[in-house]
Amino acid sequence: MYAHRIRRPELVERVMSAAAAARLFAPAMTVGMSGFTRAGDAKALPRALVERSRSEPLGLTLITGASLGNDSDGLMANTGVVARRLPFQADATLRRKINAGEVLFIDQHLSETAEQLRSGALPAIDIAVIEAVAIRADGGIVPTMAVGNSASFVQGAKQVIVELNLAAPLALEGLHDIYLPRPRPDRTPIPLTAPGERIGTTAIQVDPARIAAIVITDSPDSPSNVLPPDGETDAIARHVIAFLEGEVAAGRMTPRLLPLQAGIGSIANAVLHGLAQSSFRDLTMYSEVLQDSAIALLDGGQLALASASSITLSAPVHEAFLANLERYRDRIVLRPQEISNHPELVRRLGIIGLNTALEFDIYGNVNSTHVGGTHMMNGIGGSGDFARNGELAIFVSKSAAKNGAISSVVPMVAHVDHTEHDVDVLVTEWGLADLRGLAPRERAPLIIERCAHPVFRAALRDYYERALLRGGQTPHVLEEALAWHERYRQAGSMRP
Amino acid sequence: MYAHRIRRPELVERVMSAAAAARLFAPAMTVGMSGFTRAGDAKALPRALVERSRSEPLGLTLITGASLGNDSDGLMANTGVVARRLPFQADATLRRKINAGEVLFIDQHLSETAEQLRSGALPAIDIAVIEAVAIRADGGIVPTMAVGNSASFVQGAKQVIVELNLAAPLALEGLHDIYLPRPRPDRTPIPLTAPGERIGTTAIQVDPARIAAIVITDSPDSPSNVLPPDGETDAIARHVIAFLEGEVAAGRMTPRLLPLQAGIGSIANAVLHGLAQSSFRDLTMYSEVLQDSAIALLDGGQLALASASSITLSAPVHEAFLANLERYRDRIVLRPQEISNHPELVRRLGIIGLNTALEFDIYGNVNSTHVGGTHMMNGIGGSGDFARNGELAIFVSKSAAKNGAISSVVPMVAHVDHTEHDVDVLVTEWGLADLRGLAPRERAPLIIERCAHPVFRAALRDYYERALLRGGQTPHVLEEALAWHERYRQAGSMRP
Repeated sequence: MYAHRIRRPELVERVMSAAAAARLFAPAMTVGMSGFTRAGDAKALPRALVERSRSEPLGLTLITGASLGNDSDGLMANTGVVARRLPFQADATLRRKINAGEVLFIDQHLSETAEQLRSGALPAIDIAVIEAVAIRADGGIVPTMAVGNSASFVQGAKQVIVELNLAAPLALEGLHDIYLPRPRPDRTPIPLTAPGERIGTTAIQVDPARIAAIVITDSPDSPSNVLPPDGETDAIARHVIAFLEGEVAAGRMTPRLLPLQAGIGSIANAVLHGLAQSSFRDLTMYSEVLQDSAIALLDGGQLALASASSITLSAPVHEAFLANLERYRDRIVLRPQEISNHPELVRRLGIIGLNTALEFDIYGNVNSTHVGGTHMMNGIGGSGDFARNGELAIFVSKSAAKNGAISSVVPMVAHVDHTEHDVDVLVTEWGLADLRGLAPRERAPLIIERCAHPVFRAALRDYYERALLRGGQTPHVLEEALAWHERYRQAGSMRP
Repeated sequence: MYAHRIRRPELVERVMSAAAAARLFAPAMTVGMSGFTRAGDAKALPRALVERSRSEPLGLTLITGASLGNDSDGLMANTGVVARRLPFQADATLRRKINAGEVLFIDQHLSETAEQLRSGALPAIDIAVIEAVAIRADGGIVPTMAVGNSASFVQGAKQVIVELNLAAPLALEGLHDIYLPRPRPDRTPIPLTAPGERIGTTAIQVDPARIAAIVITDSPDSPSNVLPPDGETDAIARHVIAFLEGEVAAGRMTPRLLPLQAGIGSIANAVLHGLAQSSFRDLTMYSEVLQDSAIALLDGGQLALASASSITLSAPVHEAFLANLERYRDRIVLRPQEISNHPELVRRLGIIGLNTALEFDIYGNVNSTHVGGTHMMNGIGGSGDFARNGELAIFVSKSAAKNGAISSVVPMVAHVDHTEHDVDVLVTEWGLADLRGLAPRERAPLIIERCAHPVFRAALRDYYERALLRGGQTPHVLEEALAWHERYRQAGSMRP
């Protein structure tokens, strides 16, 4: 059975039910699970752990690539499976548990988790749970739609549980490029100089003796839940594309631009969709995730090739993608997130990073994570890897939220994920502010007039003018700087 | 004349007075000047430009490596020579001009300026002014005590003015290692895998036709102005060293540690001095600046070798260093700041970064630049290059300032330079908080109890406990979050 999926015969004996595999876990273990932006996550073990936890709360430290699908994060949070979670999540139930202080969440740059596991700054992985297409004769594990941190988990884990997902076509084999940096002090340059290059192996190497269980599943990834483009995201896309065209016209970039990164979510997805109507051709992506838009651009020829750590698609695009995998095989590479987001490569390639802001302030500081400055939304993800080290850091946001009650442009962000030092370009549906080479006092009028919703502009101008009377490199009326957030909390609107 | 310093005979004709060279400048030009933390700065041209500006205000955009010595920044700011300044400064007069909005200051990561010049995000350099030991027969410019951004300025400049400083011994030749990354998309890995390796040339290459003037000077660098260690900095040093010893004991580092970086300033200098009393041997530095402490550690054998972009010493250490250069020749490398601070190398080598915080908050966000959240002190310098990409980001601060009126540990920093995602360890004279792998709700009690001055602990606990009632990943009482700063502004003390 499964001979084409389990190519090392003695491993067939380790096939067992998810419930049996769940008995390998003990309370307070550190567990690494595959899964990145709802793609390539283990489907059976999370539910088996939920069952297991009903008799004995496990309180695991759960490390993943990024967010999981299948409501796994919510189910595990609700039943005490998980006590500590990193480096990213995007689940409504888990989010509530985090904000209530019932699950501890460590919000990390996505390139850093693997490094912290390697150095011992994080506890060692007791069990790795990896979704796979197949196990090779040498024990090599072929991942499915995401690589994430799976190779790092396997490398350090005492035991490995493989979930063989029969719904993941064997044709996925060969899509992956597994390379991990060597331990220091023997670390050498990562030999990648273009987004499409392959520098590693197509499977995750592991001593087969460490494969403690194989669980068979047959269910697809959860479809992505991004919203379709709308009038506002279309306008944001137009501003971004006009800006990039201007960079080419000014001679600062070639018509092939530089490799693009786009964060998970509806706005970044919509901006990429906008490129389909542009005159750009033969672009490349060096990103952490590919969404529907990337597949459309590959189909349309705007994109020559794409590198990422996961592929997260809507149901129809997912189906068409898997049915036509041969068409994409030479144009997509899936890598460990340590490599897709690596500072060395992000700086070398000169990434154009496109990420979503929850809010930004008149001086260019960006809040990507904390609603109202206190409550976690999803996490910083890879945006910091790209914003600090890339060539261009573009942050996009609709100018208002909650039917106009919240301004995305505020006097001072209530939580900072990206500092003024890192933010190059801000975009809303109203316009684009190019902050490069500008001092804070030059940025403020530009951001207010170009990006803020007109309803809030007068109040922002008023704040800035009164802040100027106090002086400074970054003028503020400190006792009012966070008053907009407080007004929303108390009155349900930021409007004066 | 100067045959051993100007080794290409026809260039001798371009020797002229500083006043004559100053006539090459026109208003609103973009000028790149050598100089990094008071070392290797041009001595004559700044003063000549001050004279020149008396009749015609120049309003230059002035880009340097980092801060200048000789009061040059203050004099140029006061006389209208400079209208726009980047990427760093540390001059009291210029600081006043910046905070008054009279000089525009762009506060940049020190690895980024060269990249932005190369890409055209910053305007091209009209004139580069470079202090040198000698000009070689091929036109190569041998820098003095700093490399900074000089190689990038020369590469892009329309004209180059060389200040030959006769006070800089010829023996400095050979200390430098000039390597700049290639333009994209042909950029290759930077072939450096250990702090002491040499990958470039010992002089800055330039077409001699672009050398428009040579000005002869004979004056030493301004001595560094760091304060000597005191009881509090000694205590900080003890905490840092005990922590590093613990990392070795836990098997997370070898006894040689990882390459050390230490920011400019008294506290970081004192921590390094503390290493002289430690059992560590054969350490390395991969830093942006070497201060007195680095020379003492090289002399004492604690440090095997040191790489940096500049050497800034007190007067007596400076004199002894130059008199005994041969002793250090094989153990010091001076590099462009783009290379000393490069994300690729900082991640590959796994730097331990030690930088000074103005203040930090109970969740681990660090303010390095803005007094009271609004007024610029010096700038972020290279701390962000090291904190984001290195192995360990340690931030140090005395727990209180202004005779106890200001707490360095606050509910919320009023300006964020280093986010909670980047900060690993916080240290004051009272103790050390290791934040790795901790959620914000775990960090707050640790930071308050370990790092805050006892006088402020009760108020911080009270704030945190009331913040918890509001919930969230990062609980805050938003309307009070910046009240400590506001209280200091109005009443002269943060004490309740």
